[in-house]
Amino acid sequence: MKHIQLIILIALSFKLSAQTNDSIFIRSIYNEALSNGQSYEDLRHLCKDVGARLSGSAEAQMAVEWSERTMQKYGFDKVYLQEIKVPHWERGTKESGWIRTKKEGLIKVHMLALGGSIGTEGIMEGDIVEFKHLDELKKAKRSQVEGKIVFINQPMDQQQINTFKAYGGCYAIRGNGAVEGAKLGAKAVIIRSIGMPIDQHPHTGSMHYEDSIERIPAAAISTEDAEKLSQLLKNGKAEFVMEMDCRVYPDATSYNVIAELTGENANEIITFGGHLDSWDTGEGAHDDGAGVVHCLEALRILNVLKYKPKNTLRVVFFMNEENGNMGGKSYATWSKEKGEKQIAALESDRGGFAPRGFNCDGSNDFVSLIQTFAPQFKQYDLHEFEKGYGGVDITPLKEAFPGIPLFGFVPDSQRYFDFHHAPSDVFESVNKRELELGCAAIASMVYLLDKNL
Amino acid sequence: MKHIQLIILIALSFKLSAQTNDSIFIRSIYNEALSNGQSYEDLRHLCKDVGARLSGSAEAQMAVEWSERTMQKYGFDKVYLQEIKVPHWERGTKESGWIRTKKEGLIKVHMLALGGSIGTEGIMEGDIVEFKHLDELKKAKRSQVEGKIVFINQPMDQQQINTFKAYGGCYAIRGNGAVEGAKLGAKAVIIRSIGMPIDQHPHTGSMHYEDSIERIPAAAISTEDAEKLSQLLKNGKAEFVMEMDCRVYPDATSYNVIAELTGENANEIITFGGHLDSWDTGEGAHDDGAGVVHCLEALRILNVLKYKPKNTLRVVFFMNEENGNMGGKSYATWSKEKGEKQIAALESDRGGFAPRGFNCDGSNDFVSLIQTFAPQFKQYDLHEFEKGYGGVDITPLKEAFPGIPLFGFVPDSQRYFDFHHAPSDVFESVNKRELELGCAAIASMVYLLDKNL
Repeated sequence: MKHIQLIILIALSFKLSAQTNDSIFIRSIYNEALSNGQSYEDLRHLCKDVGARLSGSAEAQMAVEWSERTMQKYGFDKVYLQEIKVPHWERGTKESGWIRTKKEGLIKVHMLALGGSIGTEGIMEGDIVEFKHLDELKKAKRSQVEGKIVFINQPMDQQQINTFKAYGGCYAIRGNGAVEGAKLGAKAVIIRSIGMPIDQHPHTGSMHYEDSIERIPAAAISTEDAEKLSQLLKNGKAEFVMEMDCRVYPDATSYNVIAELTGENANEIITFGGHLDSWDTGEGAHDDGAGVVHCLEALRILNVLKYKPKNTLRVVFFMNEENGNMGGKSYATWSKEKGEKQIAALESDRGGFAPRGFNCDGSNDFVSLIQTFAPQFKQYDLHEFEKGYGGVDITPLKEAFPGIPLFGFVPDSQRYFDFHHAPSDVFESVNKRELELGCAAIASMVYLLDKNL
Repeated sequence: MKHIQLIILIALSFKLSAQTNDSIFIRSIYNEALSNGQSYEDLRHLCKDVGARLSGSAEAQMAVEWSERTMQKYGFDKVYLQEIKVPHWERGTKESGWIRTKKEGLIKVHMLALGGSIGTEGIMEGDIVEFKHLDELKKAKRSQVEGKIVFINQPMDQQQINTFKAYGGCYAIRGNGAVEGAKLGAKAVIIRSIGMPIDQHPHTGSMHYEDSIERIPAAAISTEDAEKLSQLLKNGKAEFVMEMDCRVYPDATSYNVIAELTGENANEIITFGGHLDSWDTGEGAHDDGAGVVHCLEALRILNVLKYKPKNTLRVVFFMNEENGNMGGKSYATWSKEKGEKQIAALESDRGGFAPRGFNCDGSNDFVSLIQTFAPQFKQYDLHEFEKGYGGVDITPLKEAFPGIPLFGFVPDSQRYFDFHHAPSDVFESVNKRELELGCAAIASMVYLLDKNL
């Protein structure tokens, strides 16, 4: 019995000592992030020297160049590109919308074409028919809709505490609005922007067409304009006038940008990243400039602290998350074909706000594992370690590497949909300390995963 | 035995049913705050129609008028003023500072007199002597300091996760810098602003003199200017040139503004509030416009939901927290003299950011009590329920009502010292949802305290 007690005691003291070492190392990660952090200046360069960077654009190519150069500067073991094909849609130079009523005359609205929309081929105009919900449109009669411009005025649910849940409830009006409108003979669809505040920033984002359904133009107007239009429609008829010359170009060549610290087990990979592309408005600061600099900085910190990883730690800046996810899909296939073993993946794509925790999209064992990490994070104000979504870019890894756990970085969600896909998503909307705390949280999580997987 | 089991079972089911009722009521509080909230528009009025409101100013008087009118509009049981005397200091119309070096010539700095400082009586100039810490100044020789302008360049500690701890480490340079400088014969003291970011916003705040020590002017320059000045001093001598005509006026009459929902036990009071005064720069949006509208909205919500309180729920907009705390002190004395029984007090004075929890300045029983509330707050993303500070305004209640528990609302601290006492503390720096979530958290806490005390 005594021997067993001694063994337990030794085992326990090893565990406690490991936890203490982890605690000291994590403190050094935070100190580096907060005192010598590079993430904020990196984000400034990406936002100001590159700017918005939709797949296929010159800016997206400059973002690839900037990323490779920055990774090289930090002296990682490997930096390289993975070539991929991406869709290429451009907004064009004409994009205007007006409300016209008998009483008020013309009122200019703040409008953005939805990503992937066709243009209007000159001026398009028509009577507006309003629906408060996508389901209302689906249930409408053809006679209500035919030849008209459909206005879907579905607000985000303010009562949801996590704003991503409210986004989930509205997502379909942007994705499917044009298809549902066209089924009933609509000329075009305009949606209320999927944004939390009532303001003048329109929010774009991807929409889709179906082969068998006529393609009609689709755009988003600001929430403030949507409120105004709805009010006007209570007093009588209104027309919408719009012009857009956005169009699809042939697929373009682009790249995922990759940096590594080689592990003792070189072929066992922990992938972590965000997406380098953004919508073509604002500067893609929170979505997802923050995510890519989070992960770049996490790798830089582990390198600066001379951490010797057990597994290969690989940062991927994924291209084309916004309108095709070709970066994420190609990466999973490419890694599998190379015979790599992907043992975990982590994504940051919810903005550069104060960290709250991590979600795990994986078996309960992995959820339990990150819950054992929680005490290490308490003093850094992270408290959410629960089952949940990983991220769009890393999701294809699930099919290629069955059983792989995916982890999603969870920052505070309250302000994200003020900026998401909108002209307001600029560098100035990101707070330096909040960004840096995210970098440190991700570096710490990658460190703990590497040690425990 | 069976009887006892039955009694326990009944008791437990009552408890569970009470928790369910609480849960439903708290959800209705959040729904009201998020869907019909008035706090953001109230804050807009306070910031834009009143503005910065230092004790004794016309704006402070307009703030009293606005507050009383707004409380009356919401139809509370009682709305009234408590007359008090407050200090009256004014910045005046002259406030300029320059660095002068042989090589660079004149460089204008972003400067604010510290609250309470005397003026310079025309242009003041002198050689600059830099100290990196208040303790360095304290240890300096008279010959190093005499006849010079002391520059205390102590940065906030970026490595503190809670920014209020970093503030605590710097507070004394603002409060005591002039006294410590004057002891060694300094002409004036300029401090590095107590702000987290490196930017061009100077941060003011209160300073004090001691009767036996000569009074010298004291001002804060922006962190960016402080960095620049420190750099210049590495290359050689620099002079500082300044003019300020700030001065102290005779004490003024002012008011705490009070609203109540009368409780079943009318004389047992739960006080909650923030401070109505602010520094005279920016608009006092986070400090403490957010705090007063938090509490006003909490009472409005409880009233709208027809909650019948057990105790009297009293919102107090305290005057003069920033430079004297005469509102807080007078309130405690006045309440005691009236023979009231203050059973708990809560303050919001840490900005309008996303809620994280509540601190308790009280016995362990009260800390344990709020920890039993924690599960009710989990779904609303509050997780900190610990011993800690209540607030400046409510602290005098501790002496007047021994044993009273004080509660401090804890929002996320990361961005607070971007704005604190600076021109950047304007309405636009407050996020609507974050503000509303704070109102709901406070209303829920006041509700739970009322039911459990």
